[in-house]
Amino acid sequence: MSLSFTLHGTDGAARAGTMHTAHGAVPTPVFMPVGTAGTVKGMTADAVRATGASVILGNTYHLMLRPGAERVHALGGLHRMMDWPGPILTDSGGFQVMSLSKLRKMDKDGVTFQSHIDGSRHRLTPERSIDIQHKLDATITMVLDECTPFPATPDQARDSMELSSRWAARSKAAFVPRDGYGLFGIVQGSVYPDLRKASADALLDIGFEGYAIGGLAVGEGQEMMYQVLDVTAPLLPADRPRYLMGVGTPDDLLGAVARGVDMFDCVIPTRAGRTARAYTSQGVFNLRNARFADDDRPLDPACACPACSRHARAYLHHLFRAGEMLGPMLLTWHNLHYYQALMAGARATILAGQFDNYAVGVRAAWAAGESG
Amino acid sequence: MSLSFTLHGTDGAARAGTMHTAHGAVPTPVFMPVGTAGTVKGMTADAVRATGASVILGNTYHLMLRPGAERVHALGGLHRMMDWPGPILTDSGGFQVMSLSKLRKMDKDGVTFQSHIDGSRHRLTPERSIDIQHKLDATITMVLDECTPFPATPDQARDSMELSSRWAARSKAAFVPRDGYGLFGIVQGSVYPDLRKASADALLDIGFEGYAIGGLAVGEGQEMMYQVLDVTAPLLPADRPRYLMGVGTPDDLLGAVARGVDMFDCVIPTRAGRTARAYTSQGVFNLRNARFADDDRPLDPACACPACSRHARAYLHHLFRAGEMLGPMLLTWHNLHYYQALMAGARATILAGQFDNYAVGVRAAWAAGESG
Repeated sequence: MSLSFTLHGTDGAARAGTMHTAHGAVPTPVFMPVGTAGTVKGMTADAVRATGASVILGNTYHLMLRPGAERVHALGGLHRMMDWPGPILTDSGGFQVMSLSKLRKMDKDGVTFQSHIDGSRHRLTPERSIDIQHKLDATITMVLDECTPFPATPDQARDSMELSSRWAARSKAAFVPRDGYGLFGIVQGSVYPDLRKASADALLDIGFEGYAIGGLAVGEGQEMMYQVLDVTAPLLPADRPRYLMGVGTPDDLLGAVARGVDMFDCVIPTRAGRTARAYTSQGVFNLRNARFADDDRPLDPACACPACSRHARAYLHHLFRAGEMLGPMLLTWHNLHYYQALMAGARATILAGQFDNYAVGVRAAWAAGESG
Repeated sequence: MSLSFTLHGTDGAARAGTMHTAHGAVPTPVFMPVGTAGTVKGMTADAVRATGASVILGNTYHLMLRPGAERVHALGGLHRMMDWPGPILTDSGGFQVMSLSKLRKMDKDGVTFQSHIDGSRHRLTPERSIDIQHKLDATITMVLDECTPFPATPDQARDSMELSSRWAARSKAAFVPRDGYGLFGIVQGSVYPDLRKASADALLDIGFEGYAIGGLAVGEGQEMMYQVLDVTAPLLPADRPRYLMGVGTPDDLLGAVARGVDMFDCVIPTRAGRTARAYTSQGVFNLRNARFADDDRPLDPACACPACSRHARAYLHHLFRAGEMLGPMLLTWHNLHYYQALMAGARATILAGQFDNYAVGVRAAWAAGESG
């Protein structure tokens, strides 16, 4: 049986469930740390586990270029290579081909591009993307789509969405079902409700184990993103997980959970951690700030991660000022821990019918905090 | 009672003992990972503990400049700041003033210098060095000395050694004895046996909890270093720990243990780990080498560290090629683990009267290995 999803409860539009996969269970809502090139930057696999993460993401674009899908396959797949026996979701590679590669050229069958690493030529089609993700041993495979740029005219958005729908069908045909594995479709349609509806209908006709909402977090802003979620999430079946790709800040996550999203991935917590920015129960801190030089308090007294439970803010400040690797390591750990705790709190309060109160309380603490 | 040392057994000149300190016991022979600026580069404190390390080293020069001795003191000392409740040895700062600072000027009372970080002016005297180390809460404090450059004429070496002897007496006078804490003297005298003897006699007259052998690993080469150890170690009391500063490779450690040294520190395992060089039971590997790209074997099958027990050589190679932080993190971990295992093996075989066989076997495995 393919990957499945059990919905345990709802609170308004917010949902709490469990995804059952070949590599273990995933309680939702869930945040997936990004392990771009076969590693969550600055974290051992044990450290990722210690944050409470149950599923991580790998990037097909990066992995197909280096070390190469065939090589990962020969090494036993991504799980074994990374020491992450838990579930892994891989993206299709399409988004990063468009954002990172050189001299890319789209046609109706796929995209040809040059590696940003060494200029070598590669081609990605729906079939090749699915094949690569199979070789990586992705628990959750994503269809190859075109992430419609923002802004797009209605005509541009329709053309792009329809291309993605055709590629979704080809991706489905190429996918090899395996017990506890799954393939997710991706709803496109930019900010246009009728196009989102048409995209969802086309995907539902094909049938997937889960549905992603793509083409957001590309510059449209939080308000417009929420509007699109408000019209898109209700189009998706209740018994399948819903994944908002590339989102976002803790505030974004609370807003999207309230609108019925189950799954998230984003580089924000890891990238911010490497640049001294910490997401905490008291808001956002920049640990490079000189005001922390003598601050002997924990970064976040509500947090149990090693950065908060073992060290003072002054030490974290020192590590960043001295350019020590441990600064990015500890702050990445903290941010991922914070994201996991935020989602665990969301799940618990959804099940208790208290999610709105939870979100109000969390946001009030951010606002009251002495962040900066 | 000050820090003390129990000698459990000898095998030839090699010694196995235990150092008893305010912050725990240290089985010897022991390798101390270097935590220059309040962190062993690329390692959490938990990771350092997991390698089997029982004592670490901090650098007074770096810490006095950043974050500053008074600040470390206000944060509860180096142990608390770093989350390392175990023993910490700090050097005097003198060596790095001479190698790193700008516009340094020696006089008979101390050295005035400019910070390599911001050009600020500082002064280090025996009294100030001891005071800083006290503020850092060093378990083992080192006297301020002059590390005699190599080569040095006999006259230069004598003048330098005699300056160090006077500073050793002043360091002793400034040191505040505390239960389980100790002050170590440093034998100088370059490569001249009569000067080493004069230095050791002067230090023994003053009296210290341990004795370091300084002025080695400064370009004289392994053979000459061993010659100096052969004449210097027997000058030191059997009931005090002997510390060879700044040494060395695994081979250096075996050779020095055989000559009666108990303690070592060196940046080699951490620095090498950051640059893809691994010390293993089969010799030295450079993980950047293309021959590892498809190598699915563990780095060192005899090693239980996460790099070796969880990953393939091909993955480590990939991490370094991709510039991922996890490469330096895992290889630092491995190298420190290897150094600890090497010293644990030395201790066990000394106690069993088999140290020579152990050293022969370890070196034979290095030579037989397919390192490169």
